[in-house]
Amino acid sequence: MTTGAITTGNWGEFDLIARLFRPLAAGTPGALELKDDAALLTVPPGQELVATSDALVAGIHFLSDDPPDLIAKKSLRVNLSDLAAKGARPAFYLLSAILPRGTSREWLQRFANGLAEDQAAFGIGLVGGDTTTTDGPLTLSITALGFVPTGRMVRRSGARPGDAIFVTGTIGDGALGLLVSRGGLAALGSASRAHLRSRYRLPEPHVAFGSHISSFAHAAIDVSDGLVADLDHVLAASDVGGRLELGRVPLSPPAQDALASGAARLEDLVTGGDDYEILFTSPPEAWAAIRAAAGGLPVTEIGTVIAGQGLAIAAPDGTPITLARTGFRHF
Amino acid sequence: MTTGAITTGNWGEFDLIARLFRPLAAGTPGALELKDDAALLTVPPGQELVATSDALVAGIHFLSDDPPDLIAKKSLRVNLSDLAAKGARPAFYLLSAILPRGTSREWLQRFANGLAEDQAAFGIGLVGGDTTTTDGPLTLSITALGFVPTGRMVRRSGARPGDAIFVTGTIGDGALGLLVSRGGLAALGSASRAHLRSRYRLPEPHVAFGSHISSFAHAAIDVSDGLVADLDHVLAASDVGGRLELGRVPLSPPAQDALASGAARLEDLVTGGDDYEILFTSPPEAWAAIRAAAGGLPVTEIGTVIAGQGLAIAAPDGTPITLARTGFRHF
Repeated sequence: MTTGAITTGNWGEFDLIARLFRPLAAGTPGALELKDDAALLTVPPGQELVATSDALVAGIHFLSDDPPDLIAKKSLRVNLSDLAAKGARPAFYLLSAILPRGTSREWLQRFANGLAEDQAAFGIGLVGGDTTTTDGPLTLSITALGFVPTGRMVRRSGARPGDAIFVTGTIGDGALGLLVSRGGLAALGSASRAHLRSRYRLPEPHVAFGSHISSFAHAAIDVSDGLVADLDHVLAASDVGGRLELGRVPLSPPAQDALASGAARLEDLVTGGDDYEILFTSPPEAWAAIRAAAGGLPVTEIGTVIAGQGLAIAAPDGTPITLARTGFRHF
Repeated sequence: MTTGAITTGNWGEFDLIARLFRPLAAGTPGALELKDDAALLTVPPGQELVATSDALVAGIHFLSDDPPDLIAKKSLRVNLSDLAAKGARPAFYLLSAILPRGTSREWLQRFANGLAEDQAAFGIGLVGGDTTTTDGPLTLSITALGFVPTGRMVRRSGARPGDAIFVTGTIGDGALGLLVSRGGLAALGSASRAHLRSRYRLPEPHVAFGSHISSFAHAAIDVSDGLVADLDHVLAASDVGGRLELGRVPLSPPAQDALASGAARLEDLVTGGDDYEILFTSPPEAWAAIRAAAGGLPVTEIGTVIAGQGLAIAAPDGTPITLARTGFRHF
């Protein structure tokens, strides 16, 4: 722990650790009750460790007045989504919580409660981290570690010509939910707006499905930069091309309504970020295995991997189209 | 990676990764060239993984106008110091870089150069992370992972009555260096001021020494919260008491001059943070092994572990004293 002067909510750093974070480490042996300088992690024989970090900043990745338990869960879930897309089973995480001065005890307790709920839901334990204060926005950086059988991590680079391209869940709700959070899409019904907003605030990492994908997926990625951009990442890493049929991209009823009303364009949905679905390629004949692994989770075939390079996109009417932007490429 | 809108120095997030961070991942196989969602880490047979995270915020842990290569190195080194104090050999790290908008390309390149130099110096490789922008101060969160032979991590909790208490290097330079950085200690000579300032800006993690300590240390901690506070941590975790002889605490010549001139008090030096020395307890007869492991690094015996509880502190003249504060306890 570095020595940032913590006076948050009149709790010192040691109080924060003892009251809020130590309970989150209970039952995870390597956490050493957060009483040491470091965690001690044992990787089971025959397993490798998959490691990912995501940083979330108030005003960019969530809204500063979002409920603290949802902020906590989103911070953890975006990391769990990465683990799931790699075929890894969640194990440990470390949390750096950089808190605005004056953050209240109530806020912190609700934040910790959110983490506790998701730890139980997804089978991951806090093993370490750091807390400090900032004059800037709330910033959360989580490193999540998961186990994968040796040699079985699903990479971006394994897509092969002839694979079908699949995606879980629905696409575009995250981007639309951000619009709703900012007061947009007022013409939609309140239940539709609530659904979209919830999808933005609280992504659903497909951890259970992810634990099966190494048995049928040649390549996978979690959709965080936008469907088209993330599919581009997979194709480029695999040195193959692809065809995406926009008409097959799965959309939720609220997203369909937003399209029909003209309040959003399909292009926005497939280039928006924050979906946290799993995009993967598999031989088409794996379909039965995919369906069995998915249980109640919808999985949709949206395209094909082909030899060559680049992504050909077909509009719902079959005509080839070019998108003005492919996702949050940040240029 | 989360989708923060990066426009730093006119580089997008993908440019940042490709131009600055990918070269730092070269040669570390599990990094997958930072081209996947996650790193794939293999732990050698007979080894466990030690994991630690530290977050550093401009204005708190470093000054925002400090040279970018030194900021980079300090961010990495405070983590390396934790690994060293646990007897772990550095292996991998993940970096979350939360950058103020408008951070220049030159600044970023110098920052990456600093990381590259320390990676080479300490034998650690970048395997992942995240970048985003912020309206707040520069914030860096690093998770470092190291290897330790199974069962050999040196914990805080192993101190035994009869152990001698040892510390590497010198104590108090970090706290004095912060004073110098803020314009204090003007009466000291310029070389002394430069030495202290450098100690604050660029701690020296004792990675080589740390790789040996599991053979003689019963307990260890890196001195980041202050010598007295960190010794308290070890004694409390070990359920033992201790005696600290302030007159034996090793001080650099500039720190001795600061004391002699009245510009600082010994109390400030043993309660100041940012020393990043290794405090450990060992049987007194381990002294030869300690000296052999230390090479040119000074190691000083400063006290004794005793049965019971609490820390008795003896002033240089032998009289027992009570400190008004024990370190950065943040209350």
